[in-house]
Order: sequence, then structure tokens, then C-alpha cells
Amino acid sequence: PESKLPALGTTIFTQMSALAQKHNAINLSQGFPDFDGPQYLRDRLAYHVSQGSNQYAPMTGTAPLREAIAAKTEQIYGYAPDASTDITITAGATESLYIAITALVSKGDEVIAFDPSYDCYAPAVELAGGVMKRIQLQPPEFKVNWAEFADQITDRTKLVIINTPHNPSATVWSDSDVEQLWQTIADKHIFVLSDEVYEHICFAPQGHASVLRHPELRQRAIAVSSFGKTYHMTGWRVGYCIAPAIISAELRKVHQYLTFSITTPVQLALADMLREAPEHWQELPAFYQAKRDRLAQGLANSRLKVLPSQGTYFLLVDYSDVSDLDDVAFCHWLTEHVGVAAIPMSVFCAAPFPHKLIRLCFAKREATLDAAAERLCQL
Amino acid sequence: PESKLPALGTTIFTQMSALAQKHNAINLSQGFPDFDGPQYLRDRLAYHVSQGSNQYAPMTGTAPLREAIAAKTEQIYGYAPDASTDITITAGATESLYIAITALVSKGDEVIAFDPSYDCYAPAVELAGGVMKRIQLQPPEFKVNWAEFADQITDRTKLVIINTPHNPSATVWSDSDVEQLWQTIADKHIFVLSDEVYEHICFAPQGHASVLRHPELRQRAIAVSSFGKTYHMTGWRVGYCIAPAIISAELRKVHQYLTFSITTPVQLALADMLREAPEHWQELPAFYQAKRDRLAQGLANSRLKVLPSQGTYFLLVDYSDVSDLDDVAFCHWLTEHVGVAAIPMSVFCAAPFPHKLIRLCFAKREATLDAAAERLCQL
Ligand SMILES: CSCCC(=O)C(=O)O
Ligand SMILES: CSCCC(=O)C(=O)O
Repeated sequence: PESKLPALGTTIFTQMSALAQKHNAINLSQGFPDFDGPQYLRDRLAYHVSQGSNQYAPMTGTAPLREAIAAKTEQIYGYAPDASTDITITAGATESLYIAITALVSKGDEVIAFDPSYDCYAPAVELAGGVMKRIQLQPPEFKVNWAEFADQITDRTKLVIINTPHNPSATVWSDSDVEQLWQTIADKHIFVLSDEVYEHICFAPQGHASVLRHPELRQRAIAVSSFGKTYHMTGWRVGYCIAPAIISAELRKVHQYLTFSITTPVQLALADMLREAPEHWQELPAFYQAKRDRLAQGLANSRLKVLPSQGTYFLLVDYSDVSDLDDVAFCHWLTEHVGVAAIPMSVFCAAPFPHKLIRLCFAKREATLDAAAERLCQL
Repeated sequence: PESKLPALGTTIFTQMSALAQKHNAINLSQGFPDFDGPQYLRDRLAYHVSQGSNQYAPMTGTAPLREAIAAKTEQIYGYAPDASTDITITAGATESLYIAITALVSKGDEVIAFDPSYDCYAPAVELAGGVMKRIQLQPPEFKVNWAEFADQITDRTKLVIINTPHNPSATVWSDSDVEQLWQTIADKHIFVLSDEVYEHICFAPQGHASVLRHPELRQRAIAVSSFGKTYHMTGWRVGYCIAPAIISAELRKVHQYLTFSITTPVQLALADMLREAPEHWQELPAFYQAKRDRLAQGLANSRLKVLPSQGTYFLLVDYSDVSDLDDVAFCHWLTEHVGVAAIPMSVFCAAPFPHKLIRLCFAKREATLDAAAERLCQL
């Protein structure tokens, strides 16, 4: 068949994890923990399976999970979405992003995203017939220039995709960034798709700048999150999106015919966890900050320069004192010869990104982080 | 937002299940068992969760599950797909159908389907910019007229969607139907999407006519199946598609950015079940045939006429001796006043379908089937 996505290869995460396995390297590339999630959550899954909760969930998600999300959202962001009309459970955050883009973007519509940007946004826009306009941000701060952003808006701009805490740069937005975004689009018909899957892994003193905090912007926004990162279960594949009823109705039309509904007993276990163990996500920033600091300190005597990480479970390091290779070649070399796999930053950018930066995942046990740091100190 | 699927409402299955619940009716509408799946399968899920198999599965599916599917396919259909290049694990059969349509159908392409047809095909075609051409089949046999089919083919025909055992008509194809299809499209560039989710619930003496049995056709076909029906776990949401590597490569590009990967411990449990308990699907036709016969016999003294069911867990009944209402109105009336929920056939047809036929699901415990039959005998 003729390809509808001719330029597309296998995602960098799959590539680097496979390379890590081949060379028996420590895998700090694809983002997933090398430890398990809470015992209580695993027990609840076994419980609901044993109780016979194994048939189709409602298309929009089980009521207990939607209600638990609504309650948590109100508690954290001071805004209570309607559990029945505003929240939709999906196959990971990935499906939420896909259905939002598919439902909102038509042929010729323009979508603005900030590079580096996560690799699943553009293919969905392309399949919908939309046109990506990417604004390149620069290290180390990856700050948006709001005048430059305003210049990119046209009559065809339909959607802006944002992401905070930001993968892969590990920077975060503040509420004033959200306000700037709102000021720039307030008088235009533009929707905002906000990827917030790292909402609970935010080290910034001001906390996570969710679009759901913004009373006007949230009327036009789809906020996407998931449980994989929060509960250390990236393989369970449950995410969700929160959007006003009128937008959610359109997303749900796509979801209904794309996956229909999400694994029932997993949804029920997650609902129990959200309701019964709020301390888990409350303690998550400290849990991950300790890991971030351990890896950063382990690299303090290396020839790598560590950039600040304000959120996500990633850390950028600058290897310009070590090698002249471009970042893709360097990541291959590092996996093969040093035994540490990482993710090159340039793959998240459409424009040339000549910086010597790679991304390390610190969602790992202390022993893993220490062993990786030891190897990287030999560079 | 402007709707990209303006005509679309909530699926009939959700509507009727909600109505059944509201009126406390026996729910023979949406297809799902009211009994649980095998204990061994549930135990294996708990086992893999406890063993820490909770991070991202490979994008294409776990190797044990793909290999178990390849082995079973060879055993049943005499054809061994390549587990690494030809099999992709998805979020239920629904996602397989969606990614096949999305990857193969471009703007203006025509897709032929036979009505009555399952309700998830058309929205995916519409989102891809394709044009559905529906050929109406007639009860009680729902036989394809191959000359009429040939007449519908044009230069823009890209895909034909077939489904056997057929939901909702409960008819099945024979190998000679598959051969007829092949003869009609052999010299054209047309793909076949074959929905075979009821492959193991087939009562016809000749067995299930999988496209995978056909050495030429399978080079152009995407065969879709799932585990929900086979293992009585419709809420687990794991399906798969089998297609030649060159087609699978395109489907996987869509899958990669749509759900990325499927719940890891569920995949591993299903792989164990496939490998260790083949008797389960071997015994499934007899298991369901007994339920079919029980419901049919329960209705023998009613004023409903039972049509033959050769596959699926559905039974059509003709209510023309009972009521003049159209099938949608009759299903509502039946739920409210008789306490039995069913699915109207006309919702699966684009053309007017004036027959007085409704679909009953017999994937129910004997007590449920008996209670429903008792109520229906009072009509
Ligand atoms: C879906 S695999 C990628 C995991 C991830 O989010 C990352 O490594 O950035
Ligand atoms: C996805 S809910 C519908 C279940 C089903 O396949 C049917 O009832 O036909």
C-alpha cells in the first residue's frame, strides 16, 4: 500500500530501548521506572479481576474512576470538572492526545507546537490533514517568546499544543506563562491541548501550572493526563482527558470507534488508589527529587554538564566537552561503548538543533542511577 | 467546535444497555457474557502483575502473545504468520479495525461493506476521508450477490470490509464465499479487512471461513480478531490483526501514535492461556451452541420466529406476529414493558431495513436465558 505516513519510522524510544538491550547497556533512554508500583494498587487489580469486573466498561470510563479524577482535580486545581460530561478515560494519554487532535483538526487547519516536542503530536495532526507549525525553543531555558508565538497565528490556526512539565526538556511553565498564552489567543477561535502527564512530578516551588487552574482558558482546553507516570505502571495504559462537555462530546465520538472502552478492572483499581491513597501523589515530588539529585550529584565530577530539571523524570546533560559527535551518533556510541542508553534531543525538533544535549531518565533504583553515573564519569 | 462526525450519536449498545439498566430489564442487547472467564486466565493476570510485568510492552505487542497467536493460527488455518512482522496487538479488535482503515484509506477512496454492518466501520472511513458504499443484504440468509458486488467496484475502490461469523445477522461465510470474493478482486488493487472476532463461535459444520486459509487473498488481507469473546472477558480490551509485513508496517505507524502499546500483564496472561489451555477455544462452539439452543427452545412456544444462528453469540428473532412497531420502537417498548432488552437490526443499515427483526445475545447463564424466554413467551 502507498504510505499515508511515508516519513515515519519506529519511535526513538523503541529504537534506543532495543539498542540498550542488544548491548546490555543501562537503559536511561525510554522513560519508564525499573521498580514497581504500589502494592495496594496491584492488589486492587487482582481483587477486581477476581470479583468479576471483566466486561466492557462504559464508553466514557467507569463512574468510580471519573468521579475520583473529578474530586482530585477539584482538590488540586480548584476546579471540579463534571465527571459525567467532562472526563473521558482513554488508552493512555496517547489516545487522549490522538482523539483530541482527530476531533478538532480538519484538512488545512494549522496546529502550533513548541519544539522540542513529544513525538506523537505531529503524526496525528498529519493524519487529520492538518499542518504543523513548530516554534523552536532554545536551551537551557526553553522559554516561549510570546511575540514570536503571536506572529505564527493565522486565520487557520485551530489548536496549540503545550506540555508542562515538559518532556524532554524538564522545564516547567508558571501560571504567568498560561496567562500569556490566554492573552494571546483570547480573542481568537483557538483550542489548547495541554499534555500534563507529569503533573505530579513537578519540583518547581510554584507547583504545576495546569490549564485547569485558568478559569477562561479551561473553557477552550483539553487537559490530558495519565496514571502510568504517577503510579510507576507505564504498561497499564490508562489515561484521560478533561475538557468542557461540548468539546468532550466530539472527542468521545472518535474514542467510541477507536478503542470503545478501557480495561475495566484496571480502571477500578486506579479509582481505589486515587481515593484511598492520596499520599502517593503528594509524596511523589520528593520521591523523584531525591532520584534527580542522586543522578545529578553522581555526575558532578564527570565531564558532562547537568542542566536544571524542574519536572518530569528526565535530566538533560550537555556532552560538548566530551565529544564532537552529533547527539544521535553520540547516543549510539554511548550505548555501545559506555553502556548507558540515552535519548538525543534533536529527534524532537523539526528545525536543526545543533546543541549537544541528551536526555537521561532517572526513574530508576538508586543502584541503577549509581551504576550509570559511574560509567558516565569515565567519559 | 464544529463536528467532524456531525451525524454520530452514542452507539446503540450503550443506549440499550443504559435503557436496560433504567428499567431493570434482562439485558440481551449489548454483546457481553453475564458470567466470568476462566479462573486460570484470571490467576495468570494476577501472577504477572505480582511479578512486576507492569511497564510498557513493545509497541507491536509482547513476544509471547504474538508467538502464541502465530502458533494457533498455523494450527487452525494452516498458515503461520511471522510473529515479529505480521501480528500487531491492539486495544481490542476495535483499534485494529480503526488502524487498518486509517492506514489504507485516503481522501476519496471507496470502501465497500455489506449491510447490516457493525457500527464502527463507517466512522473510521469517514474520518479518513473515504466514501462508504454499502450493499444491503436481505434476511434470512444475508447472501452476497457477487454480480451486484462486482458492479460496485470502481477505480477508487480501496478496501472491502467483511465479517464472518457475522454480527448482527449470525450468518457465516463458507470457503467458497471467500473464493468468490477473491475471484472478483484478484486483478484489482483492493485490500480486504476481515473482522473475525467470532472465529471461535462458529456452529457451521464446515467451520470458520477465515481469509487466512486463502493463500492468495491473505496477501491482501488484514484479519482481525480479539480475546474478549473467546475468553468471556470483553472488558480486557486486547485484540490483534494479522497482515503481511508490508501492510502491517503501515498499520503499526498509526498504532504507534494512537495507543502505542497494550496493557502488559493482560497480554502475558492471554499468552499463557492460549498456550496452556487450547481446549478452551476447542470447546467453545459446543458451549455456545447449548446456550443458543436453550434460548431458541425457550422461544419455541412464543409468537416470535427464531432465525437460524450459525455463529456469534446472537440470535435474530422476527416479531412481525407480535407488533407493528418499527424495530427501534419495538426494542424500547420491549425493554420498558416486557423487561427484555434487545438490539434493533435497522441501526446497522444505511438503506431502509423494513424487516421486523431484533437481535438477542445468548452469552448468558441458563437462568438468565430462561427468565428472558419466559418473559418473551408472554408476548
Ligand atoms: C511511549 S514510550 C516513551 C516513553 C516516554 O514518554 C519517553 O521516554 O519520553
Ligand atoms: C463495543 S459494545 C458492543 C458489543 C458488541 O460487539 C455487540 O453487541 O455487537
